[in-house]
Amino acid sequence: MAIVLGPNRYGKAETRVVHVTRDGDVHHLRDLNVGISLSGDMDEVHLTGDNAAVLPTDSQKNTVFAFAREHGIGEIEEFALLLARHFTAAQPTIRHARVEIEEYSWSRIPSGSGHSFVRSGTEVRTALVHSDGPGGAESVVSGLKDLVVLNSTGSEFHGFIRDEYTTLQPTDDRVLATEVTARWRHRDPGRSEYGGSFAAARRCLLEAFAGTHSLSLQQTLYAMGRRVLEERPEICEVRLTMPNKHHFLVDLEPFGLDNDNEVYFAADRPYGLIEGTVLDDAAPAVPAAWT
Amino acid sequence: MAIVLGPNRYGKAETRVVHVTRDGDVHHLRDLNVGISLSGDMDEVHLTGDNAAVLPTDSQKNTVFAFAREHGIGEIEEFALLLARHFTAAQPTIRHARVEIEEYSWSRIPSGSGHSFVRSGTEVRTALVHSDGPGGAESVVSGLKDLVVLNSTGSEFHGFIRDEYTTLQPTDDRVLATEVTARWRHRDPGRSEYGGSFAAARRCLLEAFAGTHSLSLQQTLYAMGRRVLEERPEICEVRLTMPNKHHFLVDLEPFGLDNDNEVYFAADRPYGLIEGTVLDDAAPAVPAAWT
Amino acid sequence: MAIVLGPNRYGKAETRVVHVTRDGDVHHLRDLNVGISLSGDMDEVHLTGDNAAVLPTDSQKNTVFAFAREHGIGEIEEFALLLARHFTAAQPTIRHARVEIEEYSWSRIPSGSGHSFVRSGTEVRTALVHSDGPGGAESVVSGLKDLVVLNSTGSEFHGFIRDEYTTLQPTDDRVLATEVTARWRHRDPGRSEYGGSFAAARRCLLEAFAGTHSLSLQQTLYAMGRRVLEERPEICEVRLTMPNKHHFLVDLEPFGLDNDNEVYFAADRPYGLIEGTVLDDAAPAVPAAWT
Amino acid sequence: MAIVLGPNRYGKAETRVVHVTRDGDVHHLRDLNVGISLSGDMDEVHLTGDNAAVLPTDSQKNTVFAFAREHGIGEIEEFALLLARHFTAAQPTIRHARVEIEEYSWSRIPSGSGHSFVRSGTEVRTALVHSDGPGGAESVVSGLKDLVVLNSTGSEFHGFIRDEYTTLQPTDDRVLATEVTARWRHRDPGRSEYGGSFAAARRCLLEAFAGTHSLSLQQTLYAMGRRVLEERPEICEVRLTMPNKHHFLVDLEPFGLDNDNEVYFAADRPYGLIEGTVLDDAAPAVPAAWT
Repeated sequence: MAIVLGPNRYGKAETRVVHVTRDGDVHHLRDLNVGISLSGDMDEVHLTGDNAAVLPTDSQKNTVFAFAREHGIGEIEEFALLLARHFTAAQPTIRHARVEIEEYSWSRIPSGSGHSFVRSGTEVRTALVHSDGPGGAESVVSGLKDLVVLNSTGSEFHGFIRDEYTTLQPTDDRVLATEVTARWRHRDPGRSEYGGSFAAARRCLLEAFAGTHSLSLQQTLYAMGRRVLEERPEICEVRLTMPNKHHFLVDLEPFGLDNDNEVYFAADRPYGLIEGTVLDDAAPAVPAAWT
Repeated sequence: MAIVLGPNRYGKAETRVVHVTRDGDVHHLRDLNVGISLSGDMDEVHLTGDNAAVLPTDSQKNTVFAFAREHGIGEIEEFALLLARHFTAAQPTIRHARVEIEEYSWSRIPSGSGHSFVRSGTEVRTALVHSDGPGGAESVVSGLKDLVVLNSTGSEFHGFIRDEYTTLQPTDDRVLATEVTARWRHRDPGRSEYGGSFAAARRCLLEAFAGTHSLSLQQTLYAMGRRVLEERPEICEVRLTMPNKHHFLVDLEPFGLDNDNEVYFAADRPYGLIEGTVLDDAAPAVPAAWT
Repeated sequence: MAIVLGPNRYGKAETRVVHVTRDGDVHHLRDLNVGISLSGDMDEVHLTGDNAAVLPTDSQKNTVFAFAREHGIGEIEEFALLLARHFTAAQPTIRHARVEIEEYSWSRIPSGSGHSFVRSGTEVRTALVHSDGPGGAESVVSGLKDLVVLNSTGSEFHGFIRDEYTTLQPTDDRVLATEVTARWRHRDPGRSEYGGSFAAARRCLLEAFAGTHSLSLQQTLYAMGRRVLEERPEICEVRLTMPNKHHFLVDLEPFGLDNDNEVYFAADRPYGLIEGTVLDDAAPAVPAAWT
Repeated sequence: MAIVLGPNRYGKAETRVVHVTRDGDVHHLRDLNVGISLSGDMDEVHLTGDNAAVLPTDSQKNTVFAFAREHGIGEIEEFALLLARHFTAAQPTIRHARVEIEEYSWSRIPSGSGHSFVRSGTEVRTALVHSDGPGGAESVVSGLKDLVVLNSTGSEFHGFIRDEYTTLQPTDDRVLATEVTARWRHRDPGRSEYGGSFAAARRCLLEAFAGTHSLSLQQTLYAMGRRVLEERPEICEVRLTMPNKHHFLVDLEPFGLDNDNEVYFAADRPYGLIEGTVLDDAAPAVPAAWT
């Protein structure tokens, strides 16, 4: 037995950069949270504390701000690629870069001037990019999180296994609610038109959620992923995490009241958690794209 | 010296009730978080544990669900009044009821059926109602929280006190961002048309924020409260809490770059916190309405 | 009707200052979160944006750091008083200062050197100080929050009101759990020995919680406040907020199992919320001390 | 191209079970948060909504409560194994079970009775177990999270790469603080004495953190993992995630004050994030153990 260093990475997490573009009196706002993880020739820093191969996380943070000024901020996938390629190209000791970005959405305040904004939506757009440097592999995963959706009917659940610990009653009409985390991998990392692709994929998710008469949350999840793949050729794999945000019908009989799917208790914990992948089986698997 | 019981109250907090109204295939969704606090003849329960005057918080929770079924859920101010009046009227030992409601907003999923919804906005609508029972005083405070707004220009800050601990430089162009918590008291608790009033007050807040060239966040706060009072005669007092969500211009000079109000670091802590009241001086003060 | 400015205040919230004292190789660590709110002659800044009366919140933050260096950090009540007195004495426009401090506790790592620490406990010590300036009123409220306690027996709940919405069954043996927020007002603001007073008050709260056979959470709350007043003459008023963190006995009968107070579900929401005050009726009321 | 279902799993997350053992007047308390994820023959439920292979998450939750009654709760690794083995043995469609448990620690209230407890520490003990069913593979990963530690000296950082975006100054005396998430894999899943192993591994982590004169957080991380492996033969791999909780020395020169490592600002974001693995290179890799 020998004790050795295994997989490792380091970087600056959660750099909150806000970029304003002035187009005359009309301003454009981008609001990001950037996380960087680098890896490479890092044995010495772990074994002896020799930092000769280490680009400080403080410099990584500075790079985010400087790049926002030098290059502006396009789609977050592009900004992430720009950063990831920079670190792997510029530093011989950095063999691999992972850049993760969250984007917060803002709308213009109606009847406001061109420089007034209001945060819109709980939902966050995400990007996760990997780069192995010039000539090396790259991957781009787009996504969203905190997209909360609910169908107040059109959802059933029955025909399941009943074991000695089963008390759940089957139902043919329940509320189905979830908070979608979706991520999708681009077939050709550098070639997608990310802005339009995101909007379309998001629309696919919403429409498939709304349009699926559901016999289980798994069925809805699969339909959502499938819809994205059917409509978006630039996407080859979709991963979804969907907690079942239970809405329990309240028993009002003790108070002499019926409750015909009208009054629900929205529970916090525990909750069902459904996770699944839908993919084009012809696309090469890239497990590293998701980590 | 004698040790005595002072002010006290008790109740059920955070009952999460969701109500669905079916209008044929078109459903309507209300999603609330209800908090109840009751007070009255509660000496015995504190001094000896005698619960004869205590309506269990569990029964309060049941009442929320049953009332949603019996009365439906109108505007949250109305639902809060209904509950507050019930407890004070039904139980002789309950002299005072306070009901606080948060409402989460949902939009219809475009091109979805009539029963598909998506959570919209980080923002929460609020109501706070007090009732002293039949013939007693009542108050209604409406509001919102988590309304995040930003002006990317049109904000200055200078002319302030400089003491021996002051290093801040004056500026005539900064980002001004805040997360608004606003509450407003209705002049005549039972008479407002709460839905329209809320939409209009919210619009006033947004427009005054966007439309005020700001020399200080205090000035913006006052303008927002004033706008509500000017336009909404049913409202007599506005209280605002507005953290200054600092966006610091990043110094890019070390990298040979200028930064003409383009790249900002969005800081978390510490933050300025501005709180203020704007009111009609002819309206009687009701401090108890806000607690 | 005239629209006027009402009560207002402003300041820097959540300045996170950490202070290290080196006593040879043995270091001492203080870890605080400081919030400052000032008020005074602030009409102009609200009405016109004239900042001539305004000490920037940035300067307030700097003062916290500079005072930590100049004066060290004694008990948090003392540090809060120092700051509050400074602002009201130094600036004629500042008539009133409110300083709120949270302190996070650290323990030494056993068998570590004198400079190695581990965060201990979820619990936070608090102080809230008001000062009206030289010769003016002062108040000091000490406290704690996030103190989570549980009695696994010795708690009953019965004899309560039963109305048409009551389904709760009485019990003579339940789990009683709560997360205590306690604050206590010092009789003579400048005279307490705050460190010892805090430790003793905390011990009173814990011992009264543990030692009270409870017929209601209100009874326990009152016993806790009373214990502090009985044992600590320097304290004249105690305010407690105690959510009832429900632990529901799980019905295991469907699985052929009994459950003799052995297996519980720890619920999140809704929860009972009990708030109460215990005071020496001879002490003058100072409502402003608590806001 | 064909669209297919990829990896998937489902289960009940965050079942909060509290178990009380009565040993005469002395009670023992276990407070857990249990997450279950099952996978197996789940194509049909995704493709058609046929639930014939699905054990409801509600039944999984019931199983947690029933098992707590039937078997008591030993070490969390054992309880997780019991559950994981049950699901894979009992249901032919369930090929794989993953059980994750968090345990919250409680201490006895001093001078309280045997049934009075106070939550102790921010720190959470964790277990993550995988089982492929009777005769199949098993893995057990123990761990902890939210362990916050700080060295107020004995930490340096210099000799790092300087690129065009580097402004950080080298230092030979800084505060080093982190919030440790550590997980460690047991060599022989069923054979460890988990309680003693956990206490010893935790002690190793603390002592190595305290005892390492640090030239980089990576060096400290590696020393911590190495210490566990050196002292605990039952453990073959350690994974650590350690954010660098920056404490910035405050520049007090503008106020005419020095600051000889005395006053720090504790920053929230951004932060460095260091992740690494230390392992026995003779132990077979089991990547699935960690997912």
